[in-house]
Order: sequence, then C-alpha cells, then structure tokens
Amino acid sequence: MESITLEQAAEYLREHDKYLILMHKSPDGDAVGSGYALCMALRNMGKRADTLCGDIIPPMYGYFTDMVQNEGFEPECIVSVDLATTNLLSGKALEYKDRIDLCIDHHGSNTGFAKYGFVDGRISSCAEIIKYLFDTMKIEITKNIADALFTGICTDTGCFKYSSVSPQTHIAAADLMEKGADSGYICHAMFDNKSKSKILLEKMVLDTLEFYGGECIAFVVITKAMMDESGAMECETDGIASIPRQIEGVKIGVTMKEKENGEYRFSVRTSDEIDASVICSRFGGGGHKAAAGCSIHSTFRDAKEKMIAACIEILEDRK
Amino acid sequence: MESITLEQAAEYLREHDKYLILMHKSPDGDAVGSGYALCMALRNMGKRADTLCGDIIPPMYGYFTDMVQNEGFEPECIVSVDLATTNLLSGKALEYKDRIDLCIDHHGSNTGFAKYGFVDGRISSCAEIIKYLFDTMKIEITKNIADALFTGICTDTGCFKYSSVSPQTHIAAADLMEKGADSGYICHAMFDNKSKSKILLEKMVLDTLEFYGGECIAFVVITKAMMDESGAMECETDGIASIPRQIEGVKIGVTMKEKENGEYRFSVRTSDEIDASVICSRFGGGGHKAAAGCSIHSTFRDAKEKMIAACIEILEDRK
Repeated sequence: MESITLEQAAEYLREHDKYLILMHKSPDGDAVGSGYALCMALRNMGKRADTLCGDIIPPMYGYFTDMVQNEGFEPECIVSVDLATTNLLSGKALEYKDRIDLCIDHHGSNTGFAKYGFVDGRISSCAEIIKYLFDTMKIEITKNIADALFTGICTDTGCFKYSSVSPQTHIAAADLMEKGADSGYICHAMFDNKSKSKILLEKMVLDTLEFYGGECIAFVVITKAMMDESGAMECETDGIASIPRQIEGVKIGVTMKEKENGEYRFSVRTSDEIDASVICSRFGGGGHKAAAGCSIHSTFRDAKEKMIAACIEILEDRK
Repeated sequence: MESITLEQAAEYLREHDKYLILMHKSPDGDAVGSGYALCMALRNMGKRADTLCGDIIPPMYGYFTDMVQNEGFEPECIVSVDLATTNLLSGKALEYKDRIDLCIDHHGSNTGFAKYGFVDGRISSCAEIIKYLFDTMKIEITKNIADALFTGICTDTGCFKYSSVSPQTHIAAADLMEKGADSGYICHAMFDNKSKSKILLEKMVLDTLEFYGGECIAFVVITKAMMDESGAMECETDGIASIPRQIEGVKIGVTMKEKENGEYRFSVRTSDEIDASVICSRFGGGGHKAAAGCSIHSTFRDAKEKMIAACIEILEDRK
C-alpha cells in the first residue's frame, strides 16, 4: 500500500467518481459515521457514491443513515473506512477485498491491503480523520454530515474518555457542533439509552465475573442462552466489553462471547502498559493497543483457557 | 444578591485578599475542581487563600488537591463555588453562610445568598465559568489548575455527554489539555475505575429496579444494608443515580438512598422535557433541570410513596 497524505487523498477523491465505500462487519459508530459522512460529502460534490456493509446497519444510527439510500451503480473506486484488515469484511463486501483503491483508517495495526492509504494510529477515530479530510477539501459540512462525524468520534472515544482524545479531537467536536451536530441527542442515544434487555444482560454478565493472574485479569462471559433470556440485540453487547476493564486494579478485561458453530469471540481491553492487539493477534485478530478482538474456534473451556494463558503470559513478560 | 459580570468578579478578586472558598457538602468533581483551582490561582497572584468544605474531600481528587494545604488565617472575603443554596453547606462551612461576599455558580436555581454573584445556568459546570474567569483575568493556568478545572468540567457533564455541553465547553477542554490537563488519566479515574465493591453495589441496586407511571419512572433503592454488604464508599454511589434514567423510555429516574435517622436522600434524573428541580423543590431540595436532589424525613414506605406521587403528578401535568 502506498501511504499518501490527506491532500493526496483529497486529490484522489476530487479526480475520480462512482465510489463504493466499504465498512467492516458488526459496524460501530465510527465505521457507520465515517462511511455515511464520506458518502454524503461525495454526493454533495456531484459524485456518485454508495456505501456497503456486509452486516445490517444498526437502526440506532438512523438519524443520519436514513437520508442516504444506495443508488446501486457499477463502482469504479473502492474506498474503505475504519477497516484495519479485510478479514473484517463480510457478506457482499468481501467481493471487493482484493480491489480496494483507497483506505482511510486510524488503526496502527492496519495491514496495508489497499492501493493507496492514509492511516494514522494516533488519531482518536476514523471520523476525526474524515473531518480533517473535509477541512482539507474545503467541503461544506452539512448537519447530517456533522451528526455522522460527531457520532464516529464520540463512539470511538467512549464519549471523549479515552487517552486517544487530543485537544484537536475536542476542537473538531466543537466545530461539528457549530455545524449542527446534535451532541446532546447523539451522546444520550449512544451512551445513556439502555434497553431493559441490555440492563438485564449486564446483570447476567456481572454474575460471570472471574479474576485471574493475581486479579489483574477480569473475565466475563456472554452465552447464547443469556442473549436469548435477556432478549438483548447483538449491537447491545458492544458496551459490555468495557465493563471488566473498569474494575480497579484490573490490567486486562476480557469478554468471551459465544457465537455459532464453536466460535468464541473475545473482546480484550487493557490499561496503557499492555497491548491488547498483541494478545489478539496471536489468535488471528487485531485492533488497537487498548482495545482489540479475536475469535477462537474450539470448546468453551479450551478457548477460555487459551485466552487466559495468553493474558497471563503477557503479564509475566512485563515482570 | 447583586449580579455582576465576569470582569467585575475579576476586579473583585484582584482588589481583595485573604479568601476563604466554600464548597458544598458531599463535594463532587465540579465543587472540588472549582474551589481548588480558584485557591491555587489566587495564591499564584500573591493572595492568601484557603478552601473549606464541611465534608471530607474524596481522595480520588488527590492528583490536584494534595498540593494545596490550608494556611488557616482569618478570612476577609468569603467566596462560594458551585453552591446553589446555603442549605448545601455543612460543618464548619455553615458558620459563613450569612456572610458570603462572592458567589460563582452555574445553577439556574441559585437562591442569591451572596453580596455579589456571577451565576449562569447555561454553562456546563462551575469549573467552565472559572476557566472563563481566569481567561478574563489573564491568569496563567498551571498544570494543577488545568487538572482541577478539567475534572470539574468532565465530571459535571458526564464526560461531555450532557446537553449542557456547548462548543465552547469542548474548546475550553482542549485549551486545558494544551495547558497540561491529563485528560486520559482524569477521565479514566472519574469514569472508568470502579472498585469491586461498587460493581457489587450496582448489581444489588439493579435488583431493586421498579417501574411506575406506565414505565416512565424507573426507581432504584440504596439501603444502608447494601452499603455495608458491598463495602462501597459514600462517594462511590454518585454514578448510580444516572442508571435508572438510562433505561429506554424512562423519563424520570429516581434513586432513593437510606441515610441516618429516618432521612431518605433522593437523586432525580429526567429527560429534557421534565424539570427535576421542580420535583425536588417540593421537598426543599433543588438542582438542575435534568438532575436534582432532595431529602424526605419519614418512613421508607411513606418517603417512597411521596416521591413517586410527585413524579406521577408532573408526568400527568404534561398531558
């Protein structure tokens, strides 16, 4: 992948047309916010642009996704946003995994799968990068674009909580609010609005809390049975991954989620010194230093033991 | 109380000396951050300044409070920060309730108890006002002052989540980070660091969840027995008040806390349309539109019924 500057990315987007914007599976606020903001901006430039995600876009983002309907033309340029590796593509999006022209991402672990790429792991979110891209391009940020970008920034920073937030992140947020982003509504909808089923699921998950590695590792489990009993939706499990890491003294928080056919999905959250992406890369996953994920196909017990062993080992390495 | 401008407040602080800065009981991040920031700034101006709170300052704020020791002189000017009413003073601070010279506050419900006052209910936090005051005074914001003010702003906004956050709030946060505020540490310490006892208490509290008023009212209880069994500290119950309100469809979230000698303390959180301070003022309390508190001295059952009745009534009034 040829690394390019924001100016070069801007130039590329000005010069081409018929864009298809790819988002990763289980799309989060940063993927959806970045993808839809870019799509809206390109259309406002008079370009043709569609978005593609292999999974369903959660309805909670409807306040900025509902206005964007796909046109369904034959794309000429494939762009990926917030995508660290093509392993995170799903469904129809997989058809394009080997022909991605432009990658815009904030994952330091980005595997460089595209022809051209702007990747900066120091920036809080892909949406923050897209904001700077639009500033570079002097693109008018409409209210819908501002809502989309604000959503990406606030969801990927735990509402401006993580150490990835820089002064520029706050200045970008302020500018998006000036341009119409409804921060009060967005932050409430993203962070302060739990369904009863999610509250119930959180209670069940807390009942599975276990500690390992001298209480430095907090481990919780989400089984299919819990999902059924609580009635929680898939997208409602996102926030749960941050719970074990929040416990005082815990350096590694692990959430183990039962998926189909013997797949167990792990979400790993770590404190500054420990690199979650190193732990997850052992099992073919990846992510950021403080937040990463991977899957293990095995029995419940074996998958759990493998992950705990990997966590204990990385803790030992630091001694 | 004579309402004054920030410039006049700045002038007052320049012209006088020997300040005693009062903070409300059960001091939160905004009270402590505002009080200590003002104390440090006045001392840096060559003034004498002490702080006074009737309750213990929670050790979690030690990263900026530990550097400030009281000198214990005879004060000439009494200043209150983040204080809506002198009913919220406790212990030794009560001695000064009738001689407060300058009040700096962001509670629209401020009762105007001081000689001079700058009160703006539209600003997210008292710390944000103090930041603008320092800008007006061209006071150098040191790292400790920046940590204190950032703490006040982020704790009173739920980490930039509430609708009280304006673009200027984000710009102020960015400037405080530029001046050394360790936002990553502060946000983690304030919002992502739960003791095991707090996690246990939250589980117990969720078990008490009840709904009233056609599920528009979510009601939880914290008993003394729960505090004992979980081993949670008083200051660890702060965040719990926001839990019931977070449930989808809930317009009023009420947390009822058992105190000593038949006192029950209520924390009320509401959605935009409903004024929590109106509900709480019926019982001699107050606060903001979206977050208020009050106490009822009675039996558990009677206090609970009175509060629920008041909540149902305000819901009915809107129909």
